Amino acid sequence: MTTMRELPHPATEDIRLPEVMHALSDEVRLELVRRLADGVEGNCTLLSGDIEIHKSTLSHHYRVLREAGVTRTRVDGRDRHIRLNREALDGRFPGLLDSVLHALHA
Amino acid sequence: MTTMRELPHPATEDIRLPEVMHALSDEVRLELVRRLADGVEGNCTLLSGDIEIHKSTLSHHYRVLREAGVTRTRVDGRDRHIRLNREALDGRFPGLLDSVLHALHA
Repeated sequence: MTTMRELPHPATEDIRLPEVMHALSDEVRLELVRRLADGVEGNCTLLSGDIEIHKSTLSHHYRVLREAGVTRTRVDGRDRHIRLNREALDGRFPGLLDSVLHALHA
Repeated sequence: MTTMRELPHPATEDIRLPEVMHALSDEVRLELVRRLADGVEGNCTLLSGDIEIHKSTLSHHYRVLREAGVTRTRVDGRDRHIRLNREALDGRFPGLLDSVLHALHA
């Protein structure tokens, strides 16, 4: 039996600019996005295991990103896998994610 | 005697991505930025006179934008004139402001 499922995230047309900007206004969340920039789906534990903040705070950051539509999260048993919601973001706000990723690598 | 002066704002190299994103994560501040998109310096009273929020809240929004480096404010006697800090922002984070303005007009 598989327990794979995706956590709720907004439909593309419901992704709102203020929420996306808010999601990308925090150092930790920006670092998570930077790490996801290559497009590969990341295991949450591996992705952020070295970030020294409380687990519940980290969960909060993941939720803010997901609820804003910046990321998508897939639950596979006890694992969570996260990836950038790039296609939807690029469709809604062309160039925004790229300019942020560029700024993070500058 | 002239009383013209510019309010404090960060030097270009001190403009930080999280602060800029935070400044651009609020509906009212985004609307102010949208109105300033043509590059013309706006008188604050004329610029936001029709936005129905308390004057002190509006002052807060102007301050957040200015302190993040998104706008510059010039004081001329009792008037305040505001404009986008476009050159500095474009230098620090190429494409970011344009993608936000594009999203606001979409």
